[in-house]
Amino acid sequence: MTTPGPRTVRAARGAELTARSWATEAPLRMLHNNLDPEVAERPEDLVVYGGTGKAARDWASFEAISRELTTLGGDETLLVQSGRPVGVLRTHEWAPRVLIANSNLVPDWATWPEFRRLDALGLTMYGQMTAGSWIYIGTQGILQGTYETFAAVAEKRFGGTLRGTLTVTAGLGGMGGAQPLAVTMNEGVALVVECDPERARRRVETRYLDEIADDLDDAVRRVEAAKRERRALSVAVIGNAAEVLPELLRRGVEIDIVTDQTSAHDPLAYLPKGVDLADWHDYAAKKPDEFTDRSRESMADHVEAMVGFLDRGAEVFDYGNSIRGEAKLGGFERAFDFPGFVPAYIRPLFCDGKGPFRWAALSGDPADIAATDRAILELFPDNEPLARWIRMAGERVAFQGLPARICWLGYGERHLAGLRFNEMVASGELKAPVVIGRDHLDCGSVASPYRETEGMLDGSDAIADWPLLNALVNTASGATWVSIHHGGGVGIGRSLHAGQVTVADGTELAALKLERVLTNDPAMGVLRHVDAGYERAEKVADEKGVRIPMRG
Amino acid sequence: MTTPGPRTVRAARGAELTARSWATEAPLRMLHNNLDPEVAERPEDLVVYGGTGKAARDWASFEAISRELTTLGGDETLLVQSGRPVGVLRTHEWAPRVLIANSNLVPDWATWPEFRRLDALGLTMYGQMTAGSWIYIGTQGILQGTYETFAAVAEKRFGGTLRGTLTVTAGLGGMGGAQPLAVTMNEGVALVVECDPERARRRVETRYLDEIADDLDDAVRRVEAAKRERRALSVAVIGNAAEVLPELLRRGVEIDIVTDQTSAHDPLAYLPKGVDLADWHDYAAKKPDEFTDRSRESMADHVEAMVGFLDRGAEVFDYGNSIRGEAKLGGFERAFDFPGFVPAYIRPLFCDGKGPFRWAALSGDPADIAATDRAILELFPDNEPLARWIRMAGERVAFQGLPARICWLGYGERHLAGLRFNEMVASGELKAPVVIGRDHLDCGSVASPYRETEGMLDGSDAIADWPLLNALVNTASGATWVSIHHGGGVGIGRSLHAGQVTVADGTELAALKLERVLTNDPAMGVLRHVDAGYERAEKVADEKGVRIPMRG
Ligand SMILES: NC(=O)c1ccc[n+]([C@@H]2O[C@H](COP(=O)([O-])OP(=O)(O)OC[C@H]3O[C@@H](n4cnc5c(N)ncnc54)[C@H](O)[C@@H]3O)[C@@H](O)[C@H]2O)c1
Ligand SMILES: NC(=O)c1ccc[n+]([C@@H]2O[C@H](COP(=O)([O-])OP(=O)(O)OC[C@H]3O[C@@H](n4cnc5c(N)ncnc54)[C@H](O)[C@@H]3O)[C@@H](O)[C@H]2O)c1
Repeated sequence: MTTPGPRTVRAARGAELTARSWATEAPLRMLHNNLDPEVAERPEDLVVYGGTGKAARDWASFEAISRELTTLGGDETLLVQSGRPVGVLRTHEWAPRVLIANSNLVPDWATWPEFRRLDALGLTMYGQMTAGSWIYIGTQGILQGTYETFAAVAEKRFGGTLRGTLTVTAGLGGMGGAQPLAVTMNEGVALVVECDPERARRRVETRYLDEIADDLDDAVRRVEAAKRERRALSVAVIGNAAEVLPELLRRGVEIDIVTDQTSAHDPLAYLPKGVDLADWHDYAAKKPDEFTDRSRESMADHVEAMVGFLDRGAEVFDYGNSIRGEAKLGGFERAFDFPGFVPAYIRPLFCDGKGPFRWAALSGDPADIAATDRAILELFPDNEPLARWIRMAGERVAFQGLPARICWLGYGERHLAGLRFNEMVASGELKAPVVIGRDHLDCGSVASPYRETEGMLDGSDAIADWPLLNALVNTASGATWVSIHHGGGVGIGRSLHAGQVTVADGTELAALKLERVLTNDPAMGVLRHVDAGYERAEKVADEKGVRIPMRG
Repeated sequence: MTTPGPRTVRAARGAELTARSWATEAPLRMLHNNLDPEVAERPEDLVVYGGTGKAARDWASFEAISRELTTLGGDETLLVQSGRPVGVLRTHEWAPRVLIANSNLVPDWATWPEFRRLDALGLTMYGQMTAGSWIYIGTQGILQGTYETFAAVAEKRFGGTLRGTLTVTAGLGGMGGAQPLAVTMNEGVALVVECDPERARRRVETRYLDEIADDLDDAVRRVEAAKRERRALSVAVIGNAAEVLPELLRRGVEIDIVTDQTSAHDPLAYLPKGVDLADWHDYAAKKPDEFTDRSRESMADHVEAMVGFLDRGAEVFDYGNSIRGEAKLGGFERAFDFPGFVPAYIRPLFCDGKGPFRWAALSGDPADIAATDRAILELFPDNEPLARWIRMAGERVAFQGLPARICWLGYGERHLAGLRFNEMVASGELKAPVVIGRDHLDCGSVASPYRETEGMLDGSDAIADWPLLNALVNTASGATWVSIHHGGGVGIGRSLHAGQVTVADGTELAALKLERVLTNDPAMGVLRHVDAGYERAEKVADEKGVRIPMRG
């Protein structure tokens, strides 16, 4: 037997089974879809996204998983240990067809060097969040997450829309490039500072950014006009944020929202004032210490301007790039005067059981997603930000691999969508079943003290029982596949998280399972936040009848 | 409402339900049983065993769990987060009735100081292994574990019995006191060195030890006679092991097996040569550094003698007290010439899917355990060490709380016992249902690089996917309650492990669940060891048809 090597993989399409049931066809297609060249970063290495996040340990494991899923019965369960299929056991029809644990290490050994050693020995792999759990759907997720954050800002301060507001931010890189489109999708005006004109141009080409201004005067004119006319518009200005933000403050431009997505987490990846774009990387490589000092000094000026806007009443937040910490190291004392985005905007959504609900059409037909988009609009007619997202996503998002959609839904909402989709499969309105899952970054499925659980009200940031309970609950509720991962976006040692995907194949059993999974999974978010003492979660629990023993 | 406080708890007995079904009555009785004054170390603090291992977070949590279990329906599941009930969700009849996650922390925060901080805030609790998962059955487990280890030694070197062999060991403390009885139960002769006569006397009183010799000459005479006559006998000699073992070596006494259970892991708890028993604790407290040096020097002499016996062909092993490491620090280079007990004896059993199977009679009637003991003897007539254990346990073990039994069974055996017990409940041969569970220290349910997974063949000691998969598998197979713990016997940061308990209530559904759980749970041990490259596990898998995708 020869050892299997790389090959081009693409999910099967259409309504015909290649496995024995949709419960096994679904994970098979989604595993293959994760490695579709349209979806994966480096499919030949099985890398889906996030640098090293893989769908399977190696090609031999990939082929063995594919083979097992093709023959697996309706009362059997395949076990996957860090991307390698390690066993098939007899379970029952309510049990998941696949159970996955990726990248987990005993805590004292949970370090990058030990992980890399084990990885090099072929004993583990990095699963990221949705790479090793087979529910990555391309960059739509980044755009939607950014959209959702700005929608939450709008909800909190501006009556549900950014219409007539001006947002200033910086950075048009891999994550940051989603900012201008996310602001205009929320009907606002964005002014984005970027030091690299090439980055800005690329964003215009992909229609994530509307315009590039000639200079700061021009930029201010354009955004002030749009704001006045309550017109959505995004404008980039080429410059250094550490100079442009203080200048905007001096000029007294009326700015409503300020954030930042330069790559401030790494001082060598932030351009200091007075350094030429062309000299950047050479300088950083040759004199890293000097460069770091200058970069932190600039970040101090940058954040001082952000706090200046805060003092004038603007909504200011840290968007997960550690700029507050670096600015403090650079000598600016008030750096932590504004909050991080999770406590400020995302946690209230988590209290509602809201999170990144997503689904994919196994038919491969974009019309199936269009139909589900319409169903979502019908189901939640009063949710304006949701409707806006769904409409604009339909127009703007190019599918990668199997057509898919993401939107944030909460406790009491997700199961309605699931049941509706299942009916649409049953009636033939959809051409084939859909799978319904989510990112691991959900309301009750992560413990991650530097991100999702930073600054919990009761100090329980590091408690990791919750993602484990979440995986057990989904396994006990009828999910089709369930996963527990360590690491993910914030790295080895820093997070544990769990995921689930459930197939809607139009059967009555699927309806029963979907109802339970899509109720219980977001319920974990409500429970977790009630336990931590969030009033908003208590209100949701009371209103929707979530049973919490310690509340009587 | 007043805050609930300590009260005396004892499990209900008999065949009458106090909850709505046996699936909820069972965890209710077992939670209460863990806190029975006969069972628990400090019931008023909810501490069951192991210093701080608790059954519930606090008394309010205990009362709330009890209340919920009393009313929980057959398609509902209670979630317990580090001893506190956090939610009740609708699942289905194959799902566990309770899901538990205890003491888990995000790895970078998995330290004793952070754990203690969170514990003091009331946000977590230490679950040990069977304390927080409600299946502790008293000290029978220690005796049986020690018995099993010596049975494995007998199996490996002496044709399945210790008859006609002499074992020398030291230490008659909490764990070590089980050694003489475990050796005689295996039909061998034990000579145990203990420096504290009080300890030795207590062991005679509880019938764990047969005799105390007058001096070394007398001791040697007695054990040599017994060995010659192939008679089981245990004899203690009062003295310092660091002096007695070298003397035995000098005298050329023919010793077959050598180990040690002095508390060598803590140099202040090991008595150095030349120090009087009466001065020990005062000296250790006043001059800890000097004491540590002397103690390590003595351990070097002690271990040098052990290696001397090894050179003469004896079976020598470290029994988990770190004496090899301390002796090395004391200057003896060859300290690691003999192995630890897990790689030497326990891992081969793990390859068979063997582990600490246990059950408890919910009736409270010892006759129910006697009946199951007979059933075990009938089911496995060819397993001589098992039969010996069951017979002697029946005579020697005093029950604590609900009558219970432990014995090691492997893959292909456990489900037979489970199904048989279930039939005995159905037929009325047993007066009430039994619960069937195990310690977390099982073949495929622990990652613990200092104990259960030390020195794995492929270097995968720290990989923690396995206990998580184990918990997911049991949840997917019909277990009645499932738990995932961090910490346990080796402490915060050092292990992850999972448990399951399944009720045999005599119904057909219970039979289906028991068959799956008691097949799949030990299957995890076979899978884990096949994956690590153990030939013995591969043989078991091939012979018993365990499905392993990477093996074709
Ligand atoms: N919000 C979240 O959940 C989240 C998730 C992942 C990453 N992040 C963080 O967001 C940040 C951005 O991520 P990315 O993937 O877009 O990074 P990136 O490196 O792709 O892009 C950063 C951009 O900032 C620009 N830049 C650097 N210094 C500048 C300066 N002084 N003035 C103006 N522009 C400057 C660069 O030219 C580049 O285009 C990172 O720090 C990342 O860690 C946040
Ligand atoms: N095998 C396992 O899985 C396992 C599990 C838990 C603990 N242990 C280890 O086993 C050891 C024993 O545990 P324990 O609970 O019985 O401890 P313990 O402290 O209750 O008993 C130790 C005994 O050794 C005696 N002793 C000390 N120094 C001596 C000397 N120089 N000569 C003769 N006797 C001496 C003491 O008087 C005491 O009676 C500990 O190191 C413990 O960590 C092993």
